Amino acid sequence: MPKLVYDFAEGGRDMKDLLGGKGANLAEMTVLGLPVPPGYTITTEACQAYLDSGTVPPELAAEVDEHLEALQQRMGKRLGDADDPLLVSVRSGAKFSMPGMMDTVLNIGMNDASVVGLAQQSGSERFAWDSYRRLLQMFGKTVLGVEGFEDVLDRAKKAKGVRTDVELDADDLRALVAAFKQLVQDHTGEAFPQDPREQLDLAVRAVFDSWNTERARIYRRQERIPSDLGTAVNVCAMVFGNLGSDSGTGVAFTRDPGSGAQGVYGDYLQDAQGEDVVAGIRNTLPLADLEGLDKTSYDELMRIMQTLEEHYRDLCDIEFTVERGKLWMLQTRVGKRTAGAAFRIATQLVDEGMIDEDEALRRVNGAGLARLMFPAFGATDDATKGQRLLGKGMGASPGAAVGKVVFDSATAVAWAARGEDVVLVRRETTPDDLAGMIAAQGILTSRGGKTSHAAVVARGMGKTCVCGAEELEVDLEAGRLTTPDGDVLVEGDVISIDGTSGNVFLGAVPVRPSPVVEYFEGTLAPEDGDDLVQAVHRLVGHADATRRLAVRANADTPDDAERARRFGAQGIGLCRTEHMFLGERRQLVEDLVLAQGEEDQQQALAQLLPHQREDFTGILRAMDGLPVTVRLIDPPLHEFLPDLTELSVEVAVAEATGEPVEPKRHALLDAVRRLHESNPMIGLRGVRLGLVIPGLFAMQVRALAEAARDLRAEGLDPRPEVMVPLVGAVQELELVREEALRILADVGVEALVGTMIEVPRAALTSGQVAEAADFFSFGTNDLTQMTWGFSRDDVEAAFFSRYLDLGVFGVSPFESLDRDGVGRLVRLAVEEGRAAKPGLKTGVCGEHGGDPDSVHFFHDAGLDYVSCSPFRVPVARLEAGRAALPEPQA
Amino acid sequence: MPKLVYDFAEGGRDMKDLLGGKGANLAEMTVLGLPVPPGYTITTEACQAYLDSGTVPPELAAEVDEHLEALQQRMGKRLGDADDPLLVSVRSGAKFSMPGMMDTVLNIGMNDASVVGLAQQSGSERFAWDSYRRLLQMFGKTVLGVEGFEDVLDRAKKAKGVRTDVELDADDLRALVAAFKQLVQDHTGEAFPQDPREQLDLAVRAVFDSWNTERARIYRRQERIPSDLGTAVNVCAMVFGNLGSDSGTGVAFTRDPGSGAQGVYGDYLQDAQGEDVVAGIRNTLPLADLEGLDKTSYDELMRIMQTLEEHYRDLCDIEFTVERGKLWMLQTRVGKRTAGAAFRIATQLVDEGMIDEDEALRRVNGAGLARLMFPAFGATDDATKGQRLLGKGMGASPGAAVGKVVFDSATAVAWAARGEDVVLVRRETTPDDLAGMIAAQGILTSRGGKTSHAAVVARGMGKTCVCGAEELEVDLEAGRLTTPDGDVLVEGDVISIDGTSGNVFLGAVPVRPSPVVEYFEGTLAPEDGDDLVQAVHRLVGHADATRRLAVRANADTPDDAERARRFGAQGIGLCRTEHMFLGERRQLVEDLVLAQGEEDQQQALAQLLPHQREDFTGILRAMDGLPVTVRLIDPPLHEFLPDLTELSVEVAVAEATGEPVEPKRHALLDAVRRLHESNPMIGLRGVRLGLVIPGLFAMQVRALAEAARDLRAEGLDPRPEVMVPLVGAVQELELVREEALRILADVGVEALVGTMIEVPRAALTSGQVAEAADFFSFGTNDLTQMTWGFSRDDVEAAFFSRYLDLGVFGVSPFESLDRDGVGRLVRLAVEEGRAAKPGLKTGVCGEHGGDPDSVHFFHDAGLDYVSCSPFRVPVARLEAGRAALPEPQA
Repeated sequence: MPKLVYDFAEGGRDMKDLLGGKGANLAEMTVLGLPVPPGYTITTEACQAYLDSGTVPPELAAEVDEHLEALQQRMGKRLGDADDPLLVSVRSGAKFSMPGMMDTVLNIGMNDASVVGLAQQSGSERFAWDSYRRLLQMFGKTVLGVEGFEDVLDRAKKAKGVRTDVELDADDLRALVAAFKQLVQDHTGEAFPQDPREQLDLAVRAVFDSWNTERARIYRRQERIPSDLGTAVNVCAMVFGNLGSDSGTGVAFTRDPGSGAQGVYGDYLQDAQGEDVVAGIRNTLPLADLEGLDKTSYDELMRIMQTLEEHYRDLCDIEFTVERGKLWMLQTRVGKRTAGAAFRIATQLVDEGMIDEDEALRRVNGAGLARLMFPAFGATDDATKGQRLLGKGMGASPGAAVGKVVFDSATAVAWAARGEDVVLVRRETTPDDLAGMIAAQGILTSRGGKTSHAAVVARGMGKTCVCGAEELEVDLEAGRLTTPDGDVLVEGDVISIDGTSGNVFLGAVPVRPSPVVEYFEGTLAPEDGDDLVQAVHRLVGHADATRRLAVRANADTPDDAERARRFGAQGIGLCRTEHMFLGERRQLVEDLVLAQGEEDQQQALAQLLPHQREDFTGILRAMDGLPVTVRLIDPPLHEFLPDLTELSVEVAVAEATGEPVEPKRHALLDAVRRLHESNPMIGLRGVRLGLVIPGLFAMQVRALAEAARDLRAEGLDPRPEVMVPLVGAVQELELVREEALRILADVGVEALVGTMIEVPRAALTSGQVAEAADFFSFGTNDLTQMTWGFSRDDVEAAFFSRYLDLGVFGVSPFESLDRDGVGRLVRLAVEEGRAAKPGLKTGVCGEHGGDPDSVHFFHDAGLDYVSCSPFRVPVARLEAGRAALPEPQA
Repeated sequence: MPKLVYDFAEGGRDMKDLLGGKGANLAEMTVLGLPVPPGYTITTEACQAYLDSGTVPPELAAEVDEHLEALQQRMGKRLGDADDPLLVSVRSGAKFSMPGMMDTVLNIGMNDASVVGLAQQSGSERFAWDSYRRLLQMFGKTVLGVEGFEDVLDRAKKAKGVRTDVELDADDLRALVAAFKQLVQDHTGEAFPQDPREQLDLAVRAVFDSWNTERARIYRRQERIPSDLGTAVNVCAMVFGNLGSDSGTGVAFTRDPGSGAQGVYGDYLQDAQGEDVVAGIRNTLPLADLEGLDKTSYDELMRIMQTLEEHYRDLCDIEFTVERGKLWMLQTRVGKRTAGAAFRIATQLVDEGMIDEDEALRRVNGAGLARLMFPAFGATDDATKGQRLLGKGMGASPGAAVGKVVFDSATAVAWAARGEDVVLVRRETTPDDLAGMIAAQGILTSRGGKTSHAAVVARGMGKTCVCGAEELEVDLEAGRLTTPDGDVLVEGDVISIDGTSGNVFLGAVPVRPSPVVEYFEGTLAPEDGDDLVQAVHRLVGHADATRRLAVRANADTPDDAERARRFGAQGIGLCRTEHMFLGERRQLVEDLVLAQGEEDQQQALAQLLPHQREDFTGILRAMDGLPVTVRLIDPPLHEFLPDLTELSVEVAVAEATGEPVEPKRHALLDAVRRLHESNPMIGLRGVRLGLVIPGLFAMQVRALAEAARDLRAEGLDPRPEVMVPLVGAVQELELVREEALRILADVGVEALVGTMIEVPRAALTSGQVAEAADFFSFGTNDLTQMTWGFSRDDVEAAFFSRYLDLGVFGVSPFESLDRDGVGRLVRLAVEEGRAAKPGLKTGVCGEHGGDPDSVHFFHDAGLDYVSCSPFRVPVARLEAGRAALPEPQA
């Protein structure tokens, strides 16, 4: 059996696996010579042995004996001593922080004898009995599982007619101790253990047990913390901040974790213990006030903080206690901070020579950068104070938007075109609303969750969206939005929506645009920006210099393409062509579907061709000189037709009531019935459609080729690539490729022809598929759907929240790539595809291309590029740089 | 460069890779000393080199020179000789037979000079000019691509006022030769090549080219013949069966390929060439008549056939020609035969000491056994002669059924219960028709293809089914079936349906039940059966002794379970529980779905429990002592509710016309809307449902456990296994497993708890999933759906026939397991699952479990068992035995 107990002086910060985060940092401070109360740490290995066997390892008792004896010697006090008792705290401390998940017991060592000694030593009877009372309460609840202490305490205060604990005197507390002991006796059938060593052993065991409470297990599943790590236990001599006005307790940061401003920052509470700060009975003082109260301690604290920051080379947060003028350090760690602070501090530390630029890049991340790119309502509380809250939905896509209410896409486009800011209000959105969504400042829906069409599309655009605001009644026909309070808003009324909180306000709340976006848009030069903009500029620049992955954008329109280019995209990885069949062109799709015979079909296709060519010309022009990957049409044709149920009801009702029905509606209903699919996601779409409807893909390829030819004639450098969706077998790709190459040759244009890898079989047979592909582009949305058997439209709303609760996964596999399942297919396809065709280009064009964690995976898997929505391009650039950083030196 | 040309005397039957099937067998006969006209074979490697480079390998000419010279020496004739010309045939011959796909040119060597010599030698001017005419026609069309010979020939006959070629005399044919040469000149701009060597080289090249015609490529894709094999070319001295009454040509078999009866069998045509037999101008004679015409040739042929059968140890088929009393063998190969003949011949050969039982088992297959298990209308043509054909649909499930027309499931059940044979007639079937389908002799639908519900379920039951008989109008409400001729059938009218041809007859056509099924059912003892039954008995018995795979059945009812047991099932691999929620119990599912709050839900579940227990008791009793794997409920709940569109229309029409609507219909419509899914196949079903609806799986596990407990109390030996569907992540399985083990322990019953592997992710993470599973059962239907991204309901009808035409696959992946994609996942999961948990049980319970080719794959992949529909159990037993046979000795 290895060593199970380490004195604080025996450890160090690199021993988090064994000593937990808290224990490792206490040891580090001890070794640095900082004033840490003496103590020792029981290792995670002891906990693991206990959890495996159900019994405390027998070797533990002897090691604890030895370390406890050393602790008593050092303190000159003994546990349970009737004259001068030692008290200790028992705190959990796992490798990964699990805030609030696990147990702590303070004041171990209090009993009927030591309470007397503590009163003498401290000179305060009240303090001694209050300490005993606290032990009984914490130990009783945590270790013995007894409930009801709060009730007894409340009754005691009520009986005395007081409101707070501090108004209870020593006699009250003595009576409360007796009542608490009785409560323990009544509930457990045994007396509260007077033996301090028994208290200590039971408390350690309770901390071990707390590793496996249900909330801890669920937390770990969600945070992907392995369940077999166990926790360490820190046993530490108690120090008291509640021994009078020369005592106190506080929390401090070496820099402002909110803004990133240089200089210390913190709170101090006189004559108090840590738990009193949490209880919030009295207001804390700014840390600077400690200088006036106790300059010695203050100066020492400042020196210590400087030492810690230089030692950790990062912002540290600290818990400390002053006991009768003596400063004690109770905890430190590298502190959490806001996104803005992270960027500012990272560059500050570079300038201060503490870290290099690689390390600075490690200290920031894409999630933070994304947060900095949303506009906001100033500081939320202030800015929205006094605003009339109309209702609340889900914050589906962060940011803040203000505009006039419009209820349909056409009005949104028209009003926006004349310079008005609008908020598009719908019950829910569909692909037909796309133009309106693009035109609007923000989107508000009364139905659908965070994964509804509105939410997903808005996030992709980086557009503010509040969805599922069910208390707001949206009557599209009447053009009315009714609030629960009975307010009625009509088209043109101004509202403000907060995509983070989900709040919907009446009127215009002032919005602060993101200076980081202004920088990326090129409307704010870095030198004109504040230190945040400069920090972003420096770190994204360093990421660009470091990264191996290229970053492209998913963009379907010239506007999107231009924005993507400004944001640093090195091409378009996914240009969807299906929106080109919407709007007015729907009619042409209906013609195609209703065509009688192949001739009619070809005629309908011929009518679509010039429209497609025009679309492609705009995008290729915007991306002149950069690759543009065009995906041939992917969705099933019935997506462009009316809904089966709605149309059936319309026709049936008209017939039942004797209203005339246009013959074309009947024909359309027949077509919709014929094309109806049980599972369209895995039905007749993508390459299958291309092989079943002769001329459909050919029309698209020809339109693209002609667009490129025309631009080349203008002297531009268009670089089209043809991408075939939903390929599952190389034979499918071969058939489309042959036709595409024929058409390209015919028009006299060159283009790569490649395939999406989005069907599991394509990945599993990638060695074959590669033979017919110039590139692979992983469509990780569909690949996730099929690998998990998840229809995203159905499952996210139906059970993902339950799955997250149950810990089936820690994060939705649609948000962050599932490495074990989907990721395995990606790796396999890259490896076997390249083995079959050296030099095969590989990229990803699913939403995962802009997800920080997934970008790291794609880097590791060896892809050539990621492609994501324009708004995520800077995030992907940053994370691609971070992924390429060398391992930090130990 | 290897040797590219082999004399027939240099090859042998094991050289099919190099010489093709025809060449290898010609060589084998030559080496055996049989009278084969001399010749040589140009290898497949020469063809491959030509196909790769586009030019004939330069080494080929010299080798051909040499072999041609030897041939001329041997025959004492020279190509193109004006006195005594040699003629040769040029025939393709690939490794695998591709009947009718590729080219042949006869009479190479005919030209303006040699036609004179041939006339002298043969003594027939007409013969010589006809031979020249034939060369021009075949060479012109095949090698030069000229069309129009038939038209010229027709005009010549018309001008002369005759009907057949044989009525043309030598002068007519001479004129025709001139006309054909002119046609060639007109179309190619060049004269027909007079140089015989040029004719030969061009013909060889044309055969090479014919490897890559579109029809050949499609055929190979469908038959899974690799596209790079190429064809060999056989050049052989011509012999003529059309030189008078002492000449002729014939086809023979060493045994009857139809019945398997012993004794030779064949046809002979006097004074004819092979192509005349095909043209069918004159009736052929039975082979035995040759004895009277030419006893010498006949006796020699009999000796040769015996030699060949002893040599090949199998039924051989033969093409031969008699030229002026001299017998020549033109081809032999192991002959095709019917399923019954295969079984009979295999056991005959064992009894004759020619082969051992292993070899006999190799000679039969499961597809053949399945064909022997369907009832039939006697010999189809005879039995149905004179019957009135009402219409025709698709033969969806083979067999023959006769019965009274019924239009609904309840009537089918009621009439069948009183002993009537019925045929269930529906527009299409749904799971609600299951009881009626079970009760009926056969099923006839007017809609849906070979993969419609009716077809799939009927095939699973081994029940005759004709589907998609669109010309028959089915009016369910009026209870009428109307034929295109205007016949109107009503309930009770008798019809007969043929599940092979798809024919539907009026009245009762006599049906012959399958004696093989009677044998398996135990109603016909093998010793009472004919030689076919005895052959099946022996070979299935040998398969049972040989196989490693266990065979289980998919069965949901006690009746099915009993039949499966009679058919040799060693347990139930898949007992679906969803049909237990249909029929009268639908009401309980509606209660569950409409339940307000968890208490109502639990109450609804409590009502389902006794029903489930009763179902399980019956099945466990039928399978006493054998494992019964029960799959927890799999389909989405809305499958048990009314269809959204139908209910929407019903409610909307009622509202529009002012009819009252029950409040419950509204509530139900709300529920149906709420539960509606875009893609239910990959939505809220299987384990997801179990985790979202508390108590649902628990109810099922408890019902199963209690059923087992009760049977154990009766002294029986129930062996239940719990199977969790649709697992994609080990966490899902862990949650269900924990609950199941708790309930089993509570009831005091033991059972394995395992999982389906039907989601690609489960296979990809099988090492993790195995930790929580006692067994894996591959659900290859769903695994195929998700690996390919195919919704079977949608894609089979929409584009599988097009995909088969295009050669994307040769066989539907739902019929035969896709080894490269789905199979790769199966292998991976078996390997990694067993590595994580040695001894993990593995099986398959998709429809592939009864598919012959797939059974071999599952054997190779190392599964423990396959499970299939009861009717397929004998097929699986046979194929599992064949899969386990050792490699045959060369």
